Amino acid sequence: MNKFMTIALNEAKKAYIKREVPVGAVIVKDDVIISKAHNLREHKNTSLAHAEILAIEKACKKLNSWRLDDCTMYVTLEPCMMCAGAITQSRIQKVVIGAMDEKNGVVESIAKVFDIKTTTKVEYEIQKEEECSNILSNFFKELRNNKK
Amino acid sequence: MNKFMTIALNEAKKAYIKREVPVGAVIVKDDVIISKAHNLREHKNTSLAHAEILAIEKACKKLNSWRLDDCTMYVTLEPCMMCAGAITQSRIQKVVIGAMDEKNGVVESIAKVFDIKTTTKVEYEIQKEEECSNILSNFFKELRNNKK
Repeated sequence: MNKFMTIALNEAKKAYIKREVPVGAVIVKDDVIISKAHNLREHKNTSLAHAEILAIEKACKKLNSWRLDDCTMYVTLEPCMMCAGAITQSRIQKVVIGAMDEKNGVVESIAKVFDIKTTTKVEYEIQKEEECSNILSNFFKELRNNKK
Repeated sequence: MNKFMTIALNEAKKAYIKREVPVGAVIVKDDVIISKAHNLREHKNTSLAHAEILAIEKACKKLNSWRLDDCTMYVTLEPCMMCAGAITQSRIQKVVIGAMDEKNGVVESIAKVFDIKTTTKVEYEIQKEEECSNILSNFFKELRNNKK
């Protein structure tokens, strides 16, 4: 697995431990990690606290700019519309995706938003990693078992 | 003009004074204002600080929940992809839009994302108000004049 995707997966594992849907994201520029984050929707009690949004927030603070040109995001799960939009707005150059989200993913699954003609073009690459999807299926399996 | 759109427009005016792209948003539940906000991208130095996102953030804090069911958002400009996604994620029931954004609006202009089949359905209504678009054209006109 790509070294940055491994770090994104480690972020997802942190979310898992906190009983959050296990998704992690890392933002990289010139081969250096600018920020990393994991989903914290329940802890922060806001729908905005997806891994990608938190990683973008941290990166903007670190680079002291809302423009994240030349940055690449590694994310364990295909982004939803909000996150894909935030990626576009912050001008991230490229997104590398570890697993597909058939229900909410808008890169290839339910829509192809990066193909919409906008002022900013985001490249993407899908590097399917079983571990990125396995951690999610284990999480939801455990959740169902606990509800029984 | 609808009273809540007037308040959203007042928010846009606050942004204008701060030399931010003048967009304002108000979130309403049972005819009561839950939150209001205006675009602060330059001040906060993050692409996440659109009016809609800030209004959602405040509303989640106020209602102590990431679920904004039964809430309506009044926004002076057609949302971009990030904001439309955040509206969907936070389960806002309905969005009322004051002006169209031909370049970045994803409700009707460059895409129709609320028509995509997702787990949450967002209704929308377009109530075109000249004042909502005029404030934006004035802003960009002034910006161009200052650059000359």
